[in-house]
Amino acid sequence: MSRIDGRTADQLRPVTIERGWSKHAEGSVLISFGDTKVLCTASVTDTVPRWRRGSGEGWVTGEYAMLPRATNTRGDRESVRGKIGGRTHEISRLIGRSLRAVTDLKALGENTVVLDCDVLQADGGTRTAAVTGAYVALADAIAWAQDKKLVKSKSQPLTGTVAAVSVGIVAGVPMLDLAYEEDVRAETDMNVVCTGDGRFVEVQGTAEGEPFAREELNALLDLAVAGCAQLDGAQRLALGTT
Amino acid sequence: MSRIDGRTADQLRPVTIERGWSKHAEGSVLISFGDTKVLCTASVTDTVPRWRRGSGEGWVTGEYAMLPRATNTRGDRESVRGKIGGRTHEISRLIGRSLRAVTDLKALGENTVVLDCDVLQADGGTRTAAVTGAYVALADAIAWAQDKKLVKSKSQPLTGTVAAVSVGIVAGVPMLDLAYEEDVRAETDMNVVCTGDGRFVEVQGTAEGEPFAREELNALLDLAVAGCAQLDGAQRLALGTT
Amino acid sequence: MSRIDGRTADQLRPVTIERGWSKHAEGSVLISFGDTKVLCTASVTDTVPRWRRGSGEGWVTGEYAMLPRATNTRGDRESVRGKIGGRTHEISRLIGRSLRAVTDLKALGENTVVLDCDVLQADGGTRTAAVTGAYVALADAIAWAQDKKLVKSKSQPLTGTVAAVSVGIVAGVPMLDLAYEEDVRAETDMNVVCTGDGRFVEVQGTAEGEPFAREELNALLDLAVAGCAQLDGAQRLALGTT
Amino acid sequence: MSRIDGRTADQLRPVTIERGWSKHAEGSVLISFGDTKVLCTASVTDTVPRWRRGSGEGWVTGEYAMLPRATNTRGDRESVRGKIGGRTHEISRLIGRSLRAVTDLKALGENTVVLDCDVLQADGGTRTAAVTGAYVALADAIAWAQDKKLVKSKSQPLTGTVAAVSVGIVAGVPMLDLAYEEDVRAETDMNVVCTGDGRFVEVQGTAEGEPFAREELNALLDLAVAGCAQLDGAQRLALGTT
Amino acid sequence: MSRIDGRTADQLRPVTIERGWSKHAEGSVLISFGDTKVLCTASVTDTVPRWRRGSGEGWVTGEYAMLPRATNTRGDRESVRGKIGGRTHEISRLIGRSLRAVTDLKALGENTVVLDCDVLQADGGTRTAAVTGAYVALADAIAWAQDKKLVKSKSQPLTGTVAAVSVGIVAGVPMLDLAYEEDVRAETDMNVVCTGDGRFVEVQGTAEGEPFAREELNALLDLAVAGCAQLDGAQRLALGTT
Amino acid sequence: MSRIDGRTADQLRPVTIERGWSKHAEGSVLISFGDTKVLCTASVTDTVPRWRRGSGEGWVTGEYAMLPRATNTRGDRESVRGKIGGRTHEISRLIGRSLRAVTDLKALGENTVVLDCDVLQADGGTRTAAVTGAYVALADAIAWAQDKKLVKSKSQPLTGTVAAVSVGIVAGVPMLDLAYEEDVRAETDMNVVCTGDGRFVEVQGTAEGEPFAREELNALLDLAVAGCAQLDGAQRLALGTT
Repeated sequence: MSRIDGRTADQLRPVTIERGWSKHAEGSVLISFGDTKVLCTASVTDTVPRWRRGSGEGWVTGEYAMLPRATNTRGDRESVRGKIGGRTHEISRLIGRSLRAVTDLKALGENTVVLDCDVLQADGGTRTAAVTGAYVALADAIAWAQDKKLVKSKSQPLTGTVAAVSVGIVAGVPMLDLAYEEDVRAETDMNVVCTGDGRFVEVQGTAEGEPFAREELNALLDLAVAGCAQLDGAQRLALGTT
Repeated sequence: MSRIDGRTADQLRPVTIERGWSKHAEGSVLISFGDTKVLCTASVTDTVPRWRRGSGEGWVTGEYAMLPRATNTRGDRESVRGKIGGRTHEISRLIGRSLRAVTDLKALGENTVVLDCDVLQADGGTRTAAVTGAYVALADAIAWAQDKKLVKSKSQPLTGTVAAVSVGIVAGVPMLDLAYEEDVRAETDMNVVCTGDGRFVEVQGTAEGEPFAREELNALLDLAVAGCAQLDGAQRLALGTT
Repeated sequence: MSRIDGRTADQLRPVTIERGWSKHAEGSVLISFGDTKVLCTASVTDTVPRWRRGSGEGWVTGEYAMLPRATNTRGDRESVRGKIGGRTHEISRLIGRSLRAVTDLKALGENTVVLDCDVLQADGGTRTAAVTGAYVALADAIAWAQDKKLVKSKSQPLTGTVAAVSVGIVAGVPMLDLAYEEDVRAETDMNVVCTGDGRFVEVQGTAEGEPFAREELNALLDLAVAGCAQLDGAQRLALGTT
Repeated sequence: MSRIDGRTADQLRPVTIERGWSKHAEGSVLISFGDTKVLCTASVTDTVPRWRRGSGEGWVTGEYAMLPRATNTRGDRESVRGKIGGRTHEISRLIGRSLRAVTDLKALGENTVVLDCDVLQADGGTRTAAVTGAYVALADAIAWAQDKKLVKSKSQPLTGTVAAVSVGIVAGVPMLDLAYEEDVRAETDMNVVCTGDGRFVEVQGTAEGEPFAREELNALLDLAVAGCAQLDGAQRLALGTT
Repeated sequence: MSRIDGRTADQLRPVTIERGWSKHAEGSVLISFGDTKVLCTASVTDTVPRWRRGSGEGWVTGEYAMLPRATNTRGDRESVRGKIGGRTHEISRLIGRSLRAVTDLKALGENTVVLDCDVLQADGGTRTAAVTGAYVALADAIAWAQDKKLVKSKSQPLTGTVAAVSVGIVAGVPMLDLAYEEDVRAETDMNVVCTGDGRFVEVQGTAEGEPFAREELNALLDLAVAGCAQLDGAQRLALGTT
Repeated sequence: MSRIDGRTADQLRPVTIERGWSKHAEGSVLISFGDTKVLCTASVTDTVPRWRRGSGEGWVTGEYAMLPRATNTRGDRESVRGKIGGRTHEISRLIGRSLRAVTDLKALGENTVVLDCDVLQADGGTRTAAVTGAYVALADAIAWAQDKKLVKSKSQPLTGTVAAVSVGIVAGVPMLDLAYEEDVRAETDMNVVCTGDGRFVEVQGTAEGEPFAREELNALLDLAVAGCAQLDGAQRLALGTT
């Protein structure tokens, strides 16, 4: 059975990672998963939030947003509505947690890196593209901070790599990296964040219709682990670290 | 190895479910998981949100909140801060999704049930207690609505039962139903929502420290499925449906 | 003439005061005036608001709120609406003023006590139950702070006791401690806060329909003073200070 | 004993009421109680809030605010802070209730009158000046609405007159119409709203320091009733209704 | 061709400037341009915003607002809506910039002057009246601050004078100082802020209908420069500096 | 005298206009003025705001925003702060007014076009790039709406073309299209919006330091008119209309 765009069930959409997109940011990446395009910028400051001061440890956090017309119909700006929606909050927190999972905050020292992930165009998988791209921007920003002697520790702040992918069951078939049209029709939807060595940072599975069985969960996890491994390769290629 | 409160790794804390706690609500439950106490009320109205009008289908949604001194140190009220935090949003959405997973919205007809889950005292596992208690309040509210002829369908709006439990890896050991002290020290933290027939509605696992391996994930899921089965029993006992 | 629940005009509803309801708070009380139930917790911190620092004096303040389904029909959460309503503000301020009237802030030292009064179930008189219960929680919290040596003064921070009750004119008859059904029909509604020695801290009377005459005001004050004296007895009994 | 401005204890400050201050409003008054100056405008619309539609009854409401430099030191604008403070809320509600107490909403028909009371300069007693001035603006606005045939009822919407004054105990002496310097030093502070026939619409007394005794309350009420009677005279003079 | 109020095209409305309107503010002016009345108060504090501390320089800023019934139909309060509209923001910024253009912030020293411009009655030209009146209030406030030795510099903080006027093209004719009725019908609307020596601080021209040609722009600028010169005279007269 | 990037005083930075950037929007343009990059999307809906319904006329409006790291140092998101700043408001309004100046709203019919202008990278002139790019997006969106028969009028909704450019006086020299470094040092800063036939839609000049003289204003206007004519050419080239 072939998918709406001709892919096989275990196939990623074309992935591109363009480093150095922004002239201002300490790290920046324009990542695309098919028609989903996310601009990820990493901003370094040599301070930490008040509650961490004096701890000797740094902080890494994420903020996710969508441009109003990133989607098929225009959405109101959250700045105009005056508050941030639940979905935005959830994804921002996911990005921050995912990156902290591979960061040694002690080695980072009292520096903060903010990863802004702004969706310029959406076609499903925006949060997984955001995590995957933000990792590359973070790597560049940390290298910059080491070069500027803001990070002084001898041990590497980055303790691993991290990437994310969506999986789901569409018309009974487990599939990798859902496009928007597939996502809408999925009975089960799962986002998985993995490290480069194949372990899990986040597993978030939701039954949109029917509850899902243990075997289905296992099949989805298999797909996700394989997908993350491919994304890990794309990240290494972009960073030139293979 | 024994736990801080003497439980075994696969043991729930004492669970109590007190129905009919409120004189006003159509369904209400005071549920406790050990020292965690959540008041769950179900409010029925014979309308639906604007975007569902005329669809013939109903809606079920959740709102989660904590009293300011439910926790060890007092937290500011979200009403005073003027906005709802990311964690509150996430859990409110989780409660709504979990209950909708076992509700036939067509059979519910154009009625709305709001599940308010207010944490009166917190000691870990507030969101899982909320889902578990809210299910019982929902069952009472739907029975009330059937009795009042607001729900007219012959088919049952509730298509199954649902309960939730937390699991985690503490000092390398997978454990069921973490108390706050354990939760703080957990390397991996997972919330699992299951139906009474042992399938999954939500699986949300997060590495707080080290990423977790596939075998660890499997061990946690085994614990969670067994825990949910016990909670399903407690729910049936409370509802007198066994 | 007998009242809807069979009471005489000068009779309080059954009052219960349950101390130590919360395991976390420094003082906590679940108080009921008939079906009205308010959870009052006292939180002590060894700091004061910025504008009092260095003054050597402490601060006592109150925050009042209702659970959304404390009432007969569900109300929207103030946290969701993003702002606190006028009624909530008024009652929070009333609670704080009432308790400060019997507190020697100098003897309290630079400590703050926040009294959170959350209405779990409402049936009229929620603000007066809140003041009455909050006093008991405050007494427990101050005793705790003295025990922990946070309060070091030799003179007692509590200079008296305080309780509150509602009175009103229903169908032309002055009545004590109105239940919701009575409150709705009252022509005049008054909340009175008294000290244990029979003096006034607050008198707030409002004509809901016809303006009220001086004699009616006097009759209401007589009822209120007698009612507060009974509540003072209930507080002493709960605290074991008779 | 003479007061800071040479008044006797039972003497009002000079009161001026200037009608027709605004060219746009249906009723408008610049009222002064000594150095306290409040601009009261009444705005009529031939609709009612959604919850009153179809009832055949009208609505009267108040909004109170202070210019930022009405006071001795500049206060931040509530519009800039993004929310209205508790004190503003309380006074706005007081103004609305006071005027509704002398308005037959049925005779008003489905019209709304909003009374905006903006304090241009503050020197104590701003809320009582606001109520007293707003009554005159309301009378003018209702006459306008009758003239324009918006109000069609044969019975008068205004069923009486209403005025307000502050009283308090300063250095042990009950005094009428406190100026700011007196208000700050008052042990007890009371605002009283009376109808022209000497009955009460609102009585709000607060012990700022020591609780107050029944005799003190009586002495304050005596002063307030006499003060309101004088204000009633000033209103009639301004309206030419004597 | 004569205007709605009989003026010639190049004629200002009657201008009045009443100094010392407020007993509290360090400088205060009630200015009128015809029926437009704006209360301008200047508040001096001996601190500066955080981002200027230690710079040795002061700050001058403006805040503009309208009373809700300053206009023909009542507008909602921005404090009630919880946010400030774009127009209010724009005008507040314009006032601040205009006054800073004639202030030597170094000579002012680390003091702040806030100019509050509250429109009591509106009939077109509120922002230009605000700038013109605020200058006079600022001059008084700086003189006060020099007298109190808050400003210690020997050089004058005020380096010039500033006034503002509106011009526009109505029915094809360039006109000075538009009243509301003219403003509504204007094809082009321009606000011009000039110094006393005839140079420009701000030029803000907007085509409301047809775009405007260079010659029209020139004609409008000629009118505005002449109008500002007259306002400069009125300011000097009010300040007694001629 | 040569500029920081080697341009002459009357030279624009390189301008690129990339149409069809977004797969979802009815019109979309990525425009760059040197290193300033703005994504402009036009969203068409076949409704109008409430206050225009039934008028037979359409509406065109703009919303401007910056990504947090579009600038040299990261700015907080307005959505996170919960309100929109004054500068954002001003520019959004400018974009809307500029485009409406060349739109026949009657010919547009009851359709709305929203122009979202999001600055991806900022280096001065973001608002002028936004206006210039938004015009092209609007032209594409109107063509789309005509093609879809949403716009039914025979007369063209677009009555002309519009472009914008900044000019300023830097070190005494009038210059065209200021880059950020120049803008910061400019004594006078002006934004000019022109139609393709050389008339003005907006002229907004501000003295940042010294007030500016009439001759300087004239020199700046000359530069701006010439710059807009070049931008008009770039727009026509992009649209293929000449």
